Amino acid sequence: MSKVKNIFIGPPLKNESLQDEKLSVFWGLPILASDAVSSVAYAAEEILLVLVPVIGILSYSNLTKVSLAIVLLLVFLILSYKQTIASYPNGGGAYIVAKDNLGVVSGLTAGAALSVGYILTVAVSISSGTAAIISAFPHLAGLRIPICIFFLLILLIGNLRGIRESAKIFSIPTYAFTLAIIIMIIWGFIKVYFMGYVPPQPQLPSIPEGMQPSILLLLIAFSSGCSALTGVEAVSNAVPNFKEPTIKNSQRTLMLLGLIVFICFSGISLLANMYHVVPDKTQTVTVLSMIASEIFGSGLMYYFLQAMTALILVLAANTAYSGFPLLISVMAKDGYAPRQLALRGDRLSYSNGIVLLTALSAILIIVFGGDTHRLIPLYAVGVFLSFTLSQSGMFIKWLKHKEENNRNIKAFINGTGAFITAVAVIIIGWAKFSQGAWLVVVVIPIIILICFKIKQHYTAVALQLKRTDDELTAIDIDKDKYINHVIVPIASVNKASLRALRYARTISNRVTAFHVSINEEDSEKVRKRWALLDTDIKLYIRYSPYRKIIEPLLELVESEEHEYKKGDMITVVLPKFNVSSLWHNLLHNHTRFFLENKLLKYKHIVVATMPLQLKDDELAIERYQK
Amino acid sequence: MSKVKNIFIGPPLKNESLQDEKLSVFWGLPILASDAVSSVAYAAEEILLVLVPVIGILSYSNLTKVSLAIVLLLVFLILSYKQTIASYPNGGGAYIVAKDNLGVVSGLTAGAALSVGYILTVAVSISSGTAAIISAFPHLAGLRIPICIFFLLILLIGNLRGIRESAKIFSIPTYAFTLAIIIMIIWGFIKVYFMGYVPPQPQLPSIPEGMQPSILLLLIAFSSGCSALTGVEAVSNAVPNFKEPTIKNSQRTLMLLGLIVFICFSGISLLANMYHVVPDKTQTVTVLSMIASEIFGSGLMYYFLQAMTALILVLAANTAYSGFPLLISVMAKDGYAPRQLALRGDRLSYSNGIVLLTALSAILIIVFGGDTHRLIPLYAVGVFLSFTLSQSGMFIKWLKHKEENNRNIKAFINGTGAFITAVAVIIIGWAKFSQGAWLVVVVIPIIILICFKIKQHYTAVALQLKRTDDELTAIDIDKDKYINHVIVPIASVNKASLRALRYARTISNRVTAFHVSINEEDSEKVRKRWALLDTDIKLYIRYSPYRKIIEPLLELVESEEHEYKKGDMITVVLPKFNVSSLWHNLLHNHTRFFLENKLLKYKHIVVATMPLQLKDDELAIERYQK
Repeated sequence: MSKVKNIFIGPPLKNESLQDEKLSVFWGLPILASDAVSSVAYAAEEILLVLVPVIGILSYSNLTKVSLAIVLLLVFLILSYKQTIASYPNGGGAYIVAKDNLGVVSGLTAGAALSVGYILTVAVSISSGTAAIISAFPHLAGLRIPICIFFLLILLIGNLRGIRESAKIFSIPTYAFTLAIIIMIIWGFIKVYFMGYVPPQPQLPSIPEGMQPSILLLLIAFSSGCSALTGVEAVSNAVPNFKEPTIKNSQRTLMLLGLIVFICFSGISLLANMYHVVPDKTQTVTVLSMIASEIFGSGLMYYFLQAMTALILVLAANTAYSGFPLLISVMAKDGYAPRQLALRGDRLSYSNGIVLLTALSAILIIVFGGDTHRLIPLYAVGVFLSFTLSQSGMFIKWLKHKEENNRNIKAFINGTGAFITAVAVIIIGWAKFSQGAWLVVVVIPIIILICFKIKQHYTAVALQLKRTDDELTAIDIDKDKYINHVIVPIASVNKASLRALRYARTISNRVTAFHVSINEEDSEKVRKRWALLDTDIKLYIRYSPYRKIIEPLLELVESEEHEYKKGDMITVVLPKFNVSSLWHNLLHNHTRFFLENKLLKYKHIVVATMPLQLKDDELAIERYQK
Repeated sequence: MSKVKNIFIGPPLKNESLQDEKLSVFWGLPILASDAVSSVAYAAEEILLVLVPVIGILSYSNLTKVSLAIVLLLVFLILSYKQTIASYPNGGGAYIVAKDNLGVVSGLTAGAALSVGYILTVAVSISSGTAAIISAFPHLAGLRIPICIFFLLILLIGNLRGIRESAKIFSIPTYAFTLAIIIMIIWGFIKVYFMGYVPPQPQLPSIPEGMQPSILLLLIAFSSGCSALTGVEAVSNAVPNFKEPTIKNSQRTLMLLGLIVFICFSGISLLANMYHVVPDKTQTVTVLSMIASEIFGSGLMYYFLQAMTALILVLAANTAYSGFPLLISVMAKDGYAPRQLALRGDRLSYSNGIVLLTALSAILIIVFGGDTHRLIPLYAVGVFLSFTLSQSGMFIKWLKHKEENNRNIKAFINGTGAFITAVAVIIIGWAKFSQGAWLVVVVIPIIILICFKIKQHYTAVALQLKRTDDELTAIDIDKDKYINHVIVPIASVNKASLRALRYARTISNRVTAFHVSINEEDSEKVRKRWALLDTDIKLYIRYSPYRKIIEPLLELVESEEHEYKKGDMITVVLPKFNVSSLWHNLLHNHTRFFLENKLLKYKHIVVATMPLQLKDDELAIERYQK
């Protein structure tokens, strides 16, 4: 087992290696940007899909307006998050910021919205990547789910190996995609402005002169285009993953990410306008692919861009792998998520969070049969909700901290950010409500409720376990011993039971052997062989008509002859066979396991499990058989 | 849990109730006959399907010949098994008989062949019953597997409830089907001989005058028709399930079963001949259904017979449920199958065997997508192989036991039985080899090999645990105590760890507390709070760079300061939280479970698990929070 684990996941790493595992700007950018950059691939398309059917040829000038609004939003988001990073160098993003400044409910709302977003990102991007592969190789259609699971496993293994190593695996496509888009933008401009290329005019229904699109339509287009901005929060969540100086490095990464999204998104929007691309309602050919084929023809660059697009869609999932485990570990440290999620694994990554994210995404993929596109409208709402909460939190913070430098400018930036994103949440929620955004209204409160229940449990446990310093000083462990009754259940008198009896005598003077009789013949044999032993330990035999073991055992203990008093402990010694090969476990009836589980329901019973090493079958037969 | 169990399975039964649970002839017949009787439903059809395409109209006279051969075989089988019952009143059927008289390998061969047969019976008959339902209600087609699983669950629950109760549930269809067939036979004869009905002459290719079918063709037809006889061994396997006088009751049941099969099979063959039914190659309409509709028209009786046929096909599976668990329990008592299969459950049925049979059949059904018809050729070979081995065993027995009355007659019956069934095995195996019978050649040896491996393991364990009477007399448990080092791992100083320390002191004077440091802050807190305690127990703190616990613990033990000597025991005390609701288990990180599993790999380490009852969350918060 551990050998297999070493091959795939790598050998364990020391706590001290944590610093080495952390990210530089160069490796951090591709890991944290793949989600944001990949959403650029379809944002212009989403906007045109809303506009073209209604206002035809007017769409292109309006695309520019809508894109400008989105770019403005992007600028505010980047500036806002830059301030957030400086104030919260320990990460946790929206959850921490909202919790600190707006209270626990807001924090959990942001945390829940982000978590749902991460899970959806993984499911959606893996499914789209797989869909791209299947449309290229249709005979793989029957393998849709296995292919999705295969990608998930690659992400799982890559991320379990640790932060930096997965960066290396996943960085090339992000850089390559960005480079290809930039080349396309430059070449697209050159072709039209310097080489005199005139793009064909599209066949679109003519619109009466002087007509203007309604504000409503533009708002819907805006809400669709906002998907371009999902993923920009990734850096602020992952601040502690960066090398020292943490804040500087993550701010630089954020600015670069913003720059890339800015260039790619506005460039593609301009190209779409320039080349008058008409989106395909059936979505067989993407807008990006149309632009690319007009600019590059069907040459090598075209195929390279297509391949990188498919790859980056799959890799967008990887951003979630760096965000979710960190977010959930912060929530777990606060007691709002199962505590296991706060522990670093062998390779210093939050293994449990990584496994949980994989499992939840796998369930989504399987339940939706690998067709998770219907889920896309869902997560923009969640993401923008967490944007709003995070920005509002920062705004409140500046209002409170009166001593801060430039607090008015800072408050203005975060306040405006909060306002714009809040407007975006309302627009997206309203425009996409019937398409699934309503689900967010259901799921987020359920998650918050679960978080509170978890916190309640940990609080209750802590209260029950608590001993104050004064209480500690008052306790005398050494004098305050228990009276310990030991019971050794015996099926037959053999090496294992004799060993258990010897051990029982070691730990107490009140030892009783106990045999449950189900069949008269076996019991008689036990009685006879017991008589051969030179011991004063008493053997009790109880007939059990319902073939039960626990009940007669408890009766025996509490019967008078044992002088059992409330507060005394009972130790039941159970032998456990260690067999030499795994399948041999199937051949033993695990009475021990059931007994232990049932006995441990009683707070006064300790179960002492005594292992007995069994030799390899053939070896044992050779040695003992005469 | 146990309430749910009581509703479905019923309350536990005492050992003494075993006799009450046993079968009379009236209840035993339907349970053990449903397999044999149901196979009658398609035997004539199987024969005609072989003959009609080749020899057309001549098929009907040859059907009579082939049927006569099968009836002769039936008579020998019934007489042979009657003798087997008298000689082997403890059941186990072919396995026991072959093992006793021919040796272990023959016994295991018979056992393996029968087991495979039982599992196939369940899978095939459930699938056919479901297919009948789906052809009546085609919109259920998408639910094929769930319907199969539903029937399996009914069989599972019925059989877990106990032998007699399941008889009551399942007896009516067997009797009703038999009655319906007998009425059909009588009415069919009356219609032709007394009412002058002339069945329509079928459109069949004419065959040249004087032509005779080849022996080969007749043999293939015979091998197909032999499926009518699968299931007649059921009674001999289930002898111990009968009420006293066991032998008389089971012999009577066997004779009645033989009589029913004889009447139904020969009656249907004669009717098929009389009414010149042509089997439908696509198998949409069965021969039985054609005969019934000619005799009854499409009246009530026709639909009643159809419904009972579907029902009895499903119930044929129930015969396997009385045979398989008993067979496998006998093999388990001999050590050739996992020992758990030899234990009676709460309701005195062999619950584990019943569950195993259900699970294996469910796997077959799921793997074959509920289309298990391809498996039919498989199990006739297995069944006839076990017939042959059982008859040969009996034959050898009579040869050896020279004092037996009438041993020549008995030897003649069993010898002839062995010979005929051996011929049948060869014919079936040869005729059906490419259709799947080859699989038997692969599967049976694998099962036998596994049986031997299991036996080897139990022998090895027994040898290792064995203490002779002389050894027992020599042992002095009371003086020969262990030296016991107790280690209490401590994550923090709280109620649970203090309780564990008190217990540790109770069982030994050599107690050490042990803290694994992963984070300096926590360790410092433990160190400070420990200092407050008034105890001479030493606290060791070990830094664990790889966040491991076991390794530093073992190092500590074996370090010199502990004076640990080979042969000493180490007891590690681990607290276990008993939470008030099941989902709370998800919130604790089960370090205990992993620790216990790893520690118990060392034969000198005993793990003492100490439960700590946690109160309900709300209650605890109310009580302890000030």
